[in-house]
Amino acid sequence: MENYSEIDTYAKDWIMTAGKRLKSSFEENLNIETKANANDLVTNMDKEIEQFFLDNITETFPTHRILGEEGMGKRITDLKGVVWIIDPIDGTMNFVHQQRNFAISIGIYEDGVGKIGLIYDVVQNELYHAIKGKGAYLNNMKLTNLKKVSISEMILSINATWLMENKRVDHQILTPIIKDVRGTRSYGSAAIEMAFVASGRIDAYMTMRLAPWDFAAGSILIEEVGGEITTMSGNPLDYLNGSSLFVSKPGLHQAISETYFQNGWPTVKY
Amino acid sequence: MENYSEIDTYAKDWIMTAGKRLKSSFEENLNIETKANANDLVTNMDKEIEQFFLDNITETFPTHRILGEEGMGKRITDLKGVVWIIDPIDGTMNFVHQQRNFAISIGIYEDGVGKIGLIYDVVQNELYHAIKGKGAYLNNMKLTNLKKVSISEMILSINATWLMENKRVDHQILTPIIKDVRGTRSYGSAAIEMAFVASGRIDAYMTMRLAPWDFAAGSILIEEVGGEITTMSGNPLDYLNGSSLFVSKPGLHQAISETYFQNGWPTVKY
Repeated sequence: MENYSEIDTYAKDWIMTAGKRLKSSFEENLNIETKANANDLVTNMDKEIEQFFLDNITETFPTHRILGEEGMGKRITDLKGVVWIIDPIDGTMNFVHQQRNFAISIGIYEDGVGKIGLIYDVVQNELYHAIKGKGAYLNNMKLTNLKKVSISEMILSINATWLMENKRVDHQILTPIIKDVRGTRSYGSAAIEMAFVASGRIDAYMTMRLAPWDFAAGSILIEEVGGEITTMSGNPLDYLNGSSLFVSKPGLHQAISETYFQNGWPTVKY
Repeated sequence: MENYSEIDTYAKDWIMTAGKRLKSSFEENLNIETKANANDLVTNMDKEIEQFFLDNITETFPTHRILGEEGMGKRITDLKGVVWIIDPIDGTMNFVHQQRNFAISIGIYEDGVGKIGLIYDVVQNELYHAIKGKGAYLNNMKLTNLKKVSISEMILSINATWLMENKRVDHQILTPIIKDVRGTRSYGSAAIEMAFVASGRIDAYMTMRLAPWDFAAGSILIEEVGGEITTMSGNPLDYLNGSSLFVSKPGLHQAISETYFQNGWPTVKY
């Protein structure tokens, strides 16, 4: 029997420490583009942060496994036992170009079921945190359950790529939605976009291709505040291999399905 | 002869004070949607902030005129003399839904020429500030001149609306650009998007319809860091009536024009 209270304490401590390290990596630079080798920096920091988690988890919880973006843990082919699904920097392009709008994302799963989700928006110093069955929090303030919103009032986060011809989805199924919503946004970090849905800052988020570490933490947050979460085809997410994603406030899955997907939910070539 | 050093000192002082007022308007609320009347709040705060500027400007600089989003100054039909072009809250929808990603924008023009530009990203506490001929600053750190970037490396801010059939522009002229760039973003505040171009956080921003108060400050910033700024049709902006907008790092106007606009720049129905 795992002690999730203890795991949670360690995870929070480590994510805050990792955030400090990321901040210190750029604090003297106003404009990242003045760096000689911006891509190297990102690679180094991604790897350094993932290694930091790997070392700490392995030492403190030797039976736990790690599924991380940089692939530094042992190869994972199933989700048995406790698996930490980690993105050391979600929103890499933002990290390099903007020094903001990126996050550290950690989802802790037991036998494929999400137990703890942590998304740390480092520059905003905002820690989104959920424990299955115990609610979701933003910097220790409890997030209220999400309320229904109509399609015409909704702000949808979606990348422009999916709204023109592309190789993953028939964009013509999606464009009518965009014409009806109040507004669209795109931030370039799936973890932050899911945290924004969980905290009510946007109403839904759609994307055609994510890895498990992009949504492992966010989906626990979304579930704890009564949001809805499926792939774009309306199926459960694949936490081992990744999938498309559609998260929203309650009721929007049904409303969008009834209004736009009468001929079936979109087929997504992952 | 106007004393722009004095005007600048007042403008900075007032914009910081206005920012504090905006922050205090929501500081006890985590989730704006719990408010009974979110739309009223925005209207009230927009008006209150514009009135604040109007009162101060009128008292301190009685000959200056004000062109503001809320239309509280005297009606303006030309840009003669000194005109303060003010958006008390640029990114209103973000202000209501997110309590972030909005800014106060002030451009001070003399006979139609931009002299001082101020964009205050209130929640980030980031003041972007430009004085014509004297450079642009972010919280008093001088912004370096923008460097060239290729189309394939660029991050472009553009709202999804313009990439599907719409009444202002032929979206098919724009979609090929999106397929070639490294990434797209959309933040929902023209002032912040221009400030992001000026500070190198994104490489270009395109939109089909803005009012003068949306771009009056940003365009001074862009010019002071060597960026490029025209309408989407390649013409000068209209600071009295508004227009479309294309701002970018140097060289991108030419590169995009040569690559995608061989048959002419887009026609925009404003």
